[in-house]
Amino acid sequence: MERVLKQGFNIDYSYNIYFTEGIFAPHNKLLSDFFQQRRNPDFKQKVLVVVDSSVWKHHPNLNQELQDYFKDLNDVVLAGPPLVITGGEVCKNDPQALESIVQAIDEYAVDRHSYVFAIGGGAILDLVGYAAAISHRGIRHVRIPTTVLSQNDSGVGVKNSVNYKGKKNFLGTFTPPVAVFNDYSFLATLDKRSWLAGISEAIKVALIKDLDFYNWIQAQVEDLPRRDSQSMKELIYRCADLHLEHIRNGDPFELGSSRPLDFGHWSAHKLEQLSNFEVLHGEAVAIGLAIDVIYSYLIGNLTESEALSVVNLIHQLGLPVYHPILSEVEGKQQLLKGLTEFQEHLGGRLTVVLLEKLGKGRDYHHIDGDYVLQAIDILRDFEKEYNRLDEVS
Amino acid sequence: MERVLKQGFNIDYSYNIYFTEGIFAPHNKLLSDFFQQRRNPDFKQKVLVVVDSSVWKHHPNLNQELQDYFKDLNDVVLAGPPLVITGGEVCKNDPQALESIVQAIDEYAVDRHSYVFAIGGGAILDLVGYAAAISHRGIRHVRIPTTVLSQNDSGVGVKNSVNYKGKKNFLGTFTPPVAVFNDYSFLATLDKRSWLAGISEAIKVALIKDLDFYNWIQAQVEDLPRRDSQSMKELIYRCADLHLEHIRNGDPFELGSSRPLDFGHWSAHKLEQLSNFEVLHGEAVAIGLAIDVIYSYLIGNLTESEALSVVNLIHQLGLPVYHPILSEVEGKQQLLKGLTEFQEHLGGRLTVVLLEKLGKGRDYHHIDGDYVLQAIDILRDFEKEYNRLDEVS
Repeated sequence: MERVLKQGFNIDYSYNIYFTEGIFAPHNKLLSDFFQQRRNPDFKQKVLVVVDSSVWKHHPNLNQELQDYFKDLNDVVLAGPPLVITGGEVCKNDPQALESIVQAIDEYAVDRHSYVFAIGGGAILDLVGYAAAISHRGIRHVRIPTTVLSQNDSGVGVKNSVNYKGKKNFLGTFTPPVAVFNDYSFLATLDKRSWLAGISEAIKVALIKDLDFYNWIQAQVEDLPRRDSQSMKELIYRCADLHLEHIRNGDPFELGSSRPLDFGHWSAHKLEQLSNFEVLHGEAVAIGLAIDVIYSYLIGNLTESEALSVVNLIHQLGLPVYHPILSEVEGKQQLLKGLTEFQEHLGGRLTVVLLEKLGKGRDYHHIDGDYVLQAIDILRDFEKEYNRLDEVS
Repeated sequence: MERVLKQGFNIDYSYNIYFTEGIFAPHNKLLSDFFQQRRNPDFKQKVLVVVDSSVWKHHPNLNQELQDYFKDLNDVVLAGPPLVITGGEVCKNDPQALESIVQAIDEYAVDRHSYVFAIGGGAILDLVGYAAAISHRGIRHVRIPTTVLSQNDSGVGVKNSVNYKGKKNFLGTFTPPVAVFNDYSFLATLDKRSWLAGISEAIKVALIKDLDFYNWIQAQVEDLPRRDSQSMKELIYRCADLHLEHIRNGDPFELGSSRPLDFGHWSAHKLEQLSNFEVLHGEAVAIGLAIDVIYSYLIGNLTESEALSVVNLIHQLGLPVYHPILSEVEGKQQLLKGLTEFQEHLGGRLTVVLLEKLGKGRDYHHIDGDYVLQAIDILRDFEKEYNRLDEVS
């Protein structure tokens, strides 16, 4: 006789994304209030802090500020000295980096009622979030993104990951943080490349979801590259908001095949890898967006002038629209192979978002390799023309 | 100016637990129906099967049955040959075992729309479930538990894990399977120890939640040890049902400190480790239950005759109530250390379930080491008496 039992339950996930400056400044009560709201009367909660090496280097007072800030708190205590880890994609390729965090969690007896804080760029947030998610089946995780890219995109979302045998994000989980603190003051020490690279994700989400935001970015085309902080704060806030809204109303844990927020990303992931991660994620996304925008024009969804205006915007914001590796025979083949890997990661049918029109994305299940190569040729010529104009001026 | 964005969404988790016999028999449509309901018209879903070595050994026709069964299916295809992994706790201690599954997922391009099947005992289910949960941020996972213990307890729940530096379940996630198939026919080849060991979890859940079920087990005290399959099927079904009900109505992902289903487990985990996993999990739970039942008597919650009747039941069912390692000086110290580790794993205040009365558990936040040691002495004397009687008879 066959029998069946049905299991079913709901889990509610919620967290806040705070926008602030100087999170560890003595007068800033945001974090102390956060801890107080979540205090446990029976014991002090522990906090393990993991810091991106480049943040550690550019903020020599960070350790002192941390110690001073936590010294004044009654509800929590630092689990141990901050753990400093080399940031950038390299940390996601290095099994020892993951091991060092898990080991610290074990050594300092950081438990499920403790917190693991990650302070750094997107790669560090991904790595630390993953370590926290798998230790004790999930330790509360707080993100303090320090780059434009992580504040407006990856840091506010629900994913974490490391790479496996060079395959980006092969290992990971969907585990929302318990809070995100976007501290603008960390942006001041970013180098120019990183500052600019983060803008790509804003262009991306604007192009697929919000024409108003796209026009607003157009209007900031001079302010953003000269590091106007008001423009950047607004860009981050609006971009984060669009990402959050998309996750909330879409498919947060990606059980389906569509992943609209990955517009421009199928080629970007591959390009990062082909360049040995010398091309920053945001730069690769800029190029990936340019490819998919031209592609959207080639299949008749955009006018030539619309497509060119996007490519020009990317260029004017100081971001690349092309990389020579894409025109090498090997590079072309690898790029198209990237489509298969992109499909495998999500599974199911190939699903790539292209533009139906400016401000609106749409799923496509077939990508024509010839159009991709044609788009690359067009972008190579653009890059040549941009360089020529730069020399003239 | 400080701003805040609020993120919040719900995820619905649901899955069925099917009870059947001969899941891969040609006439058994349960699995083929399952696949058909979840088919994707655009492609065949892949299935990677991971099998416990002892199941593989005791079921020499399993591979042929699998191949034949899948050959007839239109919606799915085997990703590759079944991966056979040495079962038992040893596989959770071996990082290579985890690696071999992740590697197979990569090699056979098993994606997020594919399935990873685990066929085996609790340890294999934990390991495979973990590998599936972290690969591509979560591949659909199907459990086919083959032991009493995994069919009535661990296999129907939402946890997975591996051990880290000897610490049980240090790494893991809460990730529900997409289905569980409890195939009774696998029980026929269990050795006597494994058959009996699985009964402990039923006694456990009966003692803390369901006096009727406890009395029912009492009534099967002769049938169960002589491998009456009807009694065992009923025991598994009722025990699984109670576990599922508890997870659903409790705290599925254990965000709080309480973990009632771990009655008898704080000492069991430690005893397993102290014995180098020579004591089976279910046997350790039997001893752990005996300790906590005597403890519940010592603090005045049970009468002497109630406590003794439980200890006698455990013994009559062929399970141990004591292990000599517990009376060694080192063993005693280690056992009490287990309380701290138990607390760290959950975090927060120590929370141990004891019996308020037969059929009802209750959280306690303090455990008196002297009572624990006294309980062990009492159980040692019992074991001596049981042995004496066995010799006489």
